Amino acid sequence: MTVTRIWPSRPPGIAYGGDFNPEQWPEETLDEDLRLMAEAGVSFVSLAIFSWALLEPEPGRYEFAWLDRVIDAMAGAGIAVDLATATASPPPWWSRAHPDSLPVLADGTTLWWGSRQAFCPSSPDYRRSATALAAALAEHYRNHPALSMWHVHNEYGCHNAACYCDTSAASFRVWLRSRYDDLDRLNHAWGTTFWSQRYGEWDEILPPRSTGTWRNPGQQLDWARFCSDELLACYRAEREVLRRVTPDVPVTTNFMSLFEPLDYRAWAAEVDVVSNDHYVRLDMVDPADDLSLAGDLMRSLAGGPWWLMEHSTSAVNWQPLNRAKAPGEMIRNSLTHVARGADAIGFFQWRASRAGAEKYHSGMVPHAGTDTKVWREVVQLGAHLRALAEVAGSSVDAEVALAWTWPAWWGAELGAHPSVHLDAAGHLRAWHAALRRRAVTADVVSPLDGLAPYRLVVAPHLYLLTDEEAAALTAYVEGGGTLLATFFSGIVDERDHIRLGGYPGALRDLLGVRMEEFFPLLPGETVGLSDGRTGRIWSELGRTEGAEVRATFASGPVAGSPALTRHAVGAGHAWYLATRLDGADLDALVGDLVARCGVRRTAEVAEGVEVVRRRGPDGTWLFAINHTAEEQAVAASGLELLTGRPVDGRVTVAPGAVAVVRERGGG
Amino acid sequence: MTVTRIWPSRPPGIAYGGDFNPEQWPEETLDEDLRLMAEAGVSFVSLAIFSWALLEPEPGRYEFAWLDRVIDAMAGAGIAVDLATATASPPPWWSRAHPDSLPVLADGTTLWWGSRQAFCPSSPDYRRSATALAAALAEHYRNHPALSMWHVHNEYGCHNAACYCDTSAASFRVWLRSRYDDLDRLNHAWGTTFWSQRYGEWDEILPPRSTGTWRNPGQQLDWARFCSDELLACYRAEREVLRRVTPDVPVTTNFMSLFEPLDYRAWAAEVDVVSNDHYVRLDMVDPADDLSLAGDLMRSLAGGPWWLMEHSTSAVNWQPLNRAKAPGEMIRNSLTHVARGADAIGFFQWRASRAGAEKYHSGMVPHAGTDTKVWREVVQLGAHLRALAEVAGSSVDAEVALAWTWPAWWGAELGAHPSVHLDAAGHLRAWHAALRRRAVTADVVSPLDGLAPYRLVVAPHLYLLTDEEAAALTAYVEGGGTLLATFFSGIVDERDHIRLGGYPGALRDLLGVRMEEFFPLLPGETVGLSDGRTGRIWSELGRTEGAEVRATFASGPVAGSPALTRHAVGAGHAWYLATRLDGADLDALVGDLVARCGVRRTAEVAEGVEVVRRRGPDGTWLFAINHTAEEQAVAASGLELLTGRPVDGRVTVAPGAVAVVRERGGG
Amino acid sequence: MTVTRIWPSRPPGIAYGGDFNPEQWPEETLDEDLRLMAEAGVSFVSLAIFSWALLEPEPGRYEFAWLDRVIDAMAGAGIAVDLATATASPPPWWSRAHPDSLPVLADGTTLWWGSRQAFCPSSPDYRRSATALAAALAEHYRNHPALSMWHVHNEYGCHNAACYCDTSAASFRVWLRSRYDDLDRLNHAWGTTFWSQRYGEWDEILPPRSTGTWRNPGQQLDWARFCSDELLACYRAEREVLRRVTPDVPVTTNFMSLFEPLDYRAWAAEVDVVSNDHYVRLDMVDPADDLSLAGDLMRSLAGGPWWLMEHSTSAVNWQPLNRAKAPGEMIRNSLTHVARGADAIGFFQWRASRAGAEKYHSGMVPHAGTDTKVWREVVQLGAHLRALAEVAGSSVDAEVALAWTWPAWWGAELGAHPSVHLDAAGHLRAWHAALRRRAVTADVVSPLDGLAPYRLVVAPHLYLLTDEEAAALTAYVEGGGTLLATFFSGIVDERDHIRLGGYPGALRDLLGVRMEEFFPLLPGETVGLSDGRTGRIWSELGRTEGAEVRATFASGPVAGSPALTRHAVGAGHAWYLATRLDGADLDALVGDLVARCGVRRTAEVAEGVEVVRRRGPDGTWLFAINHTAEEQAVAASGLELLTGRPVDGRVTVAPGAVAVVRERGGG
Repeated sequence: MTVTRIWPSRPPGIAYGGDFNPEQWPEETLDEDLRLMAEAGVSFVSLAIFSWALLEPEPGRYEFAWLDRVIDAMAGAGIAVDLATATASPPPWWSRAHPDSLPVLADGTTLWWGSRQAFCPSSPDYRRSATALAAALAEHYRNHPALSMWHVHNEYGCHNAACYCDTSAASFRVWLRSRYDDLDRLNHAWGTTFWSQRYGEWDEILPPRSTGTWRNPGQQLDWARFCSDELLACYRAEREVLRRVTPDVPVTTNFMSLFEPLDYRAWAAEVDVVSNDHYVRLDMVDPADDLSLAGDLMRSLAGGPWWLMEHSTSAVNWQPLNRAKAPGEMIRNSLTHVARGADAIGFFQWRASRAGAEKYHSGMVPHAGTDTKVWREVVQLGAHLRALAEVAGSSVDAEVALAWTWPAWWGAELGAHPSVHLDAAGHLRAWHAALRRRAVTADVVSPLDGLAPYRLVVAPHLYLLTDEEAAALTAYVEGGGTLLATFFSGIVDERDHIRLGGYPGALRDLLGVRMEEFFPLLPGETVGLSDGRTGRIWSELGRTEGAEVRATFASGPVAGSPALTRHAVGAGHAWYLATRLDGADLDALVGDLVARCGVRRTAEVAEGVEVVRRRGPDGTWLFAINHTAEEQAVAASGLELLTGRPVDGRVTVAPGAVAVVRERGGG
Repeated sequence: MTVTRIWPSRPPGIAYGGDFNPEQWPEETLDEDLRLMAEAGVSFVSLAIFSWALLEPEPGRYEFAWLDRVIDAMAGAGIAVDLATATASPPPWWSRAHPDSLPVLADGTTLWWGSRQAFCPSSPDYRRSATALAAALAEHYRNHPALSMWHVHNEYGCHNAACYCDTSAASFRVWLRSRYDDLDRLNHAWGTTFWSQRYGEWDEILPPRSTGTWRNPGQQLDWARFCSDELLACYRAEREVLRRVTPDVPVTTNFMSLFEPLDYRAWAAEVDVVSNDHYVRLDMVDPADDLSLAGDLMRSLAGGPWWLMEHSTSAVNWQPLNRAKAPGEMIRNSLTHVARGADAIGFFQWRASRAGAEKYHSGMVPHAGTDTKVWREVVQLGAHLRALAEVAGSSVDAEVALAWTWPAWWGAELGAHPSVHLDAAGHLRAWHAALRRRAVTADVVSPLDGLAPYRLVVAPHLYLLTDEEAAALTAYVEGGGTLLATFFSGIVDERDHIRLGGYPGALRDLLGVRMEEFFPLLPGETVGLSDGRTGRIWSELGRTEGAEVRATFASGPVAGSPALTRHAVGAGHAWYLATRLDGADLDALVGDLVARCGVRRTAEVAEGVEVVRRRGPDGTWLFAINHTAEEQAVAASGLELLTGRPVDGRVTVAPGAVAVVRERGGG
Repeated sequence: MTVTRIWPSRPPGIAYGGDFNPEQWPEETLDEDLRLMAEAGVSFVSLAIFSWALLEPEPGRYEFAWLDRVIDAMAGAGIAVDLATATASPPPWWSRAHPDSLPVLADGTTLWWGSRQAFCPSSPDYRRSATALAAALAEHYRNHPALSMWHVHNEYGCHNAACYCDTSAASFRVWLRSRYDDLDRLNHAWGTTFWSQRYGEWDEILPPRSTGTWRNPGQQLDWARFCSDELLACYRAEREVLRRVTPDVPVTTNFMSLFEPLDYRAWAAEVDVVSNDHYVRLDMVDPADDLSLAGDLMRSLAGGPWWLMEHSTSAVNWQPLNRAKAPGEMIRNSLTHVARGADAIGFFQWRASRAGAEKYHSGMVPHAGTDTKVWREVVQLGAHLRALAEVAGSSVDAEVALAWTWPAWWGAELGAHPSVHLDAAGHLRAWHAALRRRAVTADVVSPLDGLAPYRLVVAPHLYLLTDEEAAALTAYVEGGGTLLATFFSGIVDERDHIRLGGYPGALRDLLGVRMEEFFPLLPGETVGLSDGRTGRIWSELGRTEGAEVRATFASGPVAGSPALTRHAVGAGHAWYLATRLDGADLDALVGDLVARCGVRRTAEVAEGVEVVRRRGPDGTWLFAINHTAEEQAVAASGLELLTGRPVDGRVTVAPGAVAVVRERGGG
């Protein structure tokens, strides 16, 4: 039998919707929900995300009637359903029946039920119960026309990314045997001759539980790999069930932006659609930076368009201070995601809850109802997205890449390092923001992703480099590319072994430098450079070996050592930056690099204006996002899609607003 | 047999004394104690507070001989005994025999003996042993003339307000069954459809132990109620024993001022005498604020005079920095308590310990002996209290009420809220202090306490409001009263469910406003108001629906939204303040409100002078407390009791001192 | 059979070397190691410190072949071996076989293997296995010519100074029975009548595990004594084995400078050679202060020369920020240790690791190889030490003593005290630094060490004083000495009982003061003194009783109370300082005291120049250490040993460098 789905393949235009939790409301609310969804132009909902307790109220007894009613109503309204497998939170009865499946912290503390995600990722009981539920849902809804995507679990690892229990220990050992085969290889990789840590039997190996002092870094690095893989195995188990029953329905699970515990590059290969949750964090230097970076990362992982599965219409509930969004901010955020490649815009959640832990998280329908700022903007966004339907499926122009891998991140964050103040992710954000201020869009890639198309590759704190990755970077430069690597890159191999002979080991020859010792700086401490710029966070002692010195440290214990160098290699150049630059100093360096490499700016823009270009087979769209409080003009000609007005030479963008121009003659 | 007690009913005059722990000292010290108590005018002591280990050195074997000697000596000296039931700290043998009765933290950590209060409030073993000890004491001392009050336990919940063990879990379930009867009602109240938390059996319910992320707020709110009730049950069990044996002896247990874990309003209904412990905390904005607030709270809970059971002659030992009191400070503090309604002044403790955890806590007899500042002030205070004997039993004038309930406090402090910076208790303190600066005395009441007598009621962060409480506030205003409610009041019902349709839900109609979204401010961040004042901590977006706008937010994302409004309702007015005011801004608003409502100031005073009026059937006493370093004058005529001098028109008060004037012709 | 050791008795000249861990490297590296050791002039290595897992790969099976090869190579190269007993870290198989021997924190958290020192100091299994390994090593190497010293364990107590498990509890009880014999004496000593803590049986006593509030201070003080003694018992057990087998080989274990958990004064009596590890900590006011203090402490404990067993050539890895040493800093540090009495200079470690938790800890051979700053300085230091060979065995001139005991330190750091800001060790450092700035060298002694030789004794926070110690201080002053004691000295006896009658109890008569109450100051808060100086941290209320007032507190609640006093007693003077002075104020007081007592300055020096004089039977050596960035001159005549140049009248010292002059005619 052939099913006719609401979306036969991918959604038409930009999908719009969010998490829908009708079980929190009286049945009669559904009529109003349908009316309001129509008013807003909602085209999809994510259903059943936390419904395990309702779907399986007792072991093995499934109840779908309540969900049938909802999903039928969606079908009736032409709304596609991204159906969750509902496995993110086992119900209390399940946890009580499987107390050995509760997560355990490194210090032995058990995490109990009564919140969410209270399960050990290695628990065989969990995996069995979760796949059984996924199978039951798949069998029940396999032929439902509204079923348009599978939403496996929800935000894997948000609260249980690592469990230190005995079951996890056993599973870790299996994973290690598969990685090392031979115990001697593991002992060598972890450097266990030191501190008398040598393992004589596999069963002696533990997760990195609480210890008297520093834990073995090799163990911790493999533990990070294992934890990502273990949750990925949970995902794959569910996905296999779903694919078997509904091979035509795409499968996703929602990522969480730049989330350290999960190597999303490995995960992206396992999903049919990359989908992401992004929330603006008030504690960041510029919260907007993170949003654009997340979009570029997701696009790079997806290799094209992706879904914004969750963001918020206004305040969230989980930060120390949760402020509502200013007027226009939600639309601006949403369209920025579209600019960076999103083909769907979803919110958590449709109706703001009236009870429970997330009741102060905003929704599409707020507590105060529809005569509100939030609802008016939700309706307006729906109209905007319909006006942008033609953008769906297009790619994004990017001539620069930021090199970034999860193993390098995990390595850089290990303890007993030269400085706790490096903040690798913050450094990535700083480079991305400087490029953005320069109107340059960047992909976020692994060195193995194929660098040749890029005019410039920046590697901030690419601490851990495999031989293969180092070779790829070298080949890229030799082939004519320009690489800039920062300090604390290339220091160790994949086992966290120092590459001896001088820093930055794996990149020493490529960069033409040889550094000896690290002189990190305290927060607030600075060091002047010979070119007048100001270094922060780091300085180091060393010399060039072939590279040209562009700036040296001008004072302090490393006075005279190179701070910025350039090495001509093959047809390209390799730059090394031995300190951290901020603000205008970083902007100037970015400007210089971009100009030298011939990277084209997306447009000439005033400060505070963000521009991105999406490109389809038949044309381009320029997104201009005005972060300032004044009206801004950007050079563009064509049709402004949100207003439907032609623009000729320049488009004006209202304060805090966005313009999207279908460009005449391409970008 | 009729016993003739030292105090046949209530103490004559103002009682004076403190905790007396003679077991810490050689027997021969008692003679000196008696001599010094006479010198100081001590009229009562609290005995045996931590004596369980001495009174019951082995299971079931009671030893009273040592206590007989002490209590007989007290009787001989005419000193009344507030006899403790000695159940605050089980001895080591008891804890070792009942390891399941040790308290357990939310993360599973056991709290061991070797400190104090090491018992689970739900332990049936504890309750059995404690009531047995109370019964033995009651039987032994039932006819002792010195026995004048029972002091049950000591500072209930100071260190074991919540225990998360399995016994507590079982008791919590019993409490919940009694509250909800039906599991569906509990599921609905807690909003368990979210995050798959639905309970299928009562036995699945746990205390809010450590979890991966936010715990269910409904569960936490009921847990707070349960914890207060569970310790109250401990108290009642002891009280029943005592009442049965000595029906003529009043029973108390000492409260701890504004203490979050225990709903003292419920507790106050169960004691014969409200008694309180108050210690000055150096980390507060103005430590003196808290003292006056605590006095007003205790008077309000008692509905009249109360006992100050403990405070300190000088430094305490438990803060990070423990500073001795400045000369005169102890007397000033003591008389402030009397001004606010205290009919007894007690100290912890008679002699400063020479060993143990509290040895740096000051006592009436300090380490350095009697040729000391402390001892001289102790003797002087005794004389002062004798001079004030006539004040005992009188009430205190208060035309303003601060509305405050423990459930609202618990609710306001739950996690995942718009801001962690609200500090409900600090907000209460700020309003109380502003009223005090205006020479206005306030009661601290529940909306259900009968508001009609008050000219003004202020509700700071009355977050959780029952329907009945909301109705009482409305009736009060309709009847001609003036209410000012601040932001984050009336938001939820007693289950912590949002009252939908706009904030502040339960008070929206009464206040004539409808707010949509919260824009809390970071610490230090401010927002200007249209009337020139400065808002802090909070701003919000919304509009009036019937109320008159007195000030709007002047800038930022909520510019134009109402910040201060007034709504005429029936014969009264309801004001709403949508931000926090400090300092002169708050003082000006208080001055305006007080003037509009016709609240009479106790006296015209200079800054730093605190005035309170006690009122008896035959006259009034004006207390004038000078917090400044200069002599101050206050308008008064009558007899100044501490000096015995008549005053005519004005009384002068030395720097840091207190004057008490028996007023001619009433206040 | 008589063994001819490389060092028949003590090493010739200044020993030079460090920890050598060849097991971390391929076998073929050893040849390069030998070549480089010769280049650097290495004369000793510490071997096998973390080699348990290699030496005993399975229970009871010992493998020495790999170590034989290394130790034979050392013998061949004439390098002495400080051979570790390798018991600092049991291997994983051992911990897995003895899970009850894992350390347990006060809150019940188990510390697992996978790091180091994962054993309970009271574990009988550990003691049995450790002594067996020590015995096996001793038997195997008893006749090896390279065996020159035994290095028992390594840094005892670095991570497991206290274990709270049941085994430790039982051992604690045995220790307590031995100390108190009678339970009543323990109850009295701990003041257990308070808080109902009285113990009826020994088995009721626990380690000071997690409790609801403050733990008993007597229990904590005895616990600190027990923990130091328990590890000392571990040491003694190994030492007895070694002495039996190799009575001619000296035994040491490396101390860790001013390390709170271990009473090194008691430990020093048990070692043949006092050896120390010292690392510069960036978070100290002046990191160099701590180095000189540590040297003086070790010399005082040793009663003569001592070994610097470990320091670092450059950065360490365990601080939040680990900065490499500036050029010259390592040599300056090393020679400062020699100046303060070190006869050996060792490093952790020979080769910087390439893997494991300490890979960012610098070594003598850095990651970058031998064409580096570090290696060049290592070679230069070797030459310097050879040039200083004649200094070995000499003593150090010191006319001032700082009185310091571990029990007083433990007591001062207990909780529930007047202030958490005292920082006893910081106060000691401040006095030591002020003396050093004045060119005065101090010993660090117990009051019982024999004070008569000193012209001045300073007691900063000598909080706990036994009767015997107090008597020794009194006798010292009566005999003509000058004592300065600071506030919070002499407050309690050895049981932590307050000495009643006024502070500072045990010293009240000697100092001629009587203080009543403490008024500690907040960080940043100051109080002016009548002499224009500025007090910090502390003020107090009291009066003199016989002493002359030199300065009073000039304002605040204790205005008029004595701040600095001097009491003539017998032939000497006792000074009391009731607040903390910093910077120039402290320097001026030190200058005044030193001048009054006739203490000779080592030399007249400019600011930033440190001078120390070592003295041998036939002459003296002046060490001049230049901490400034300018060349400095110091008065001296004789032969400068590092350059081999004669100096006549003055020696010039380059910026950051050290000069050592063999003085003509003694110092």
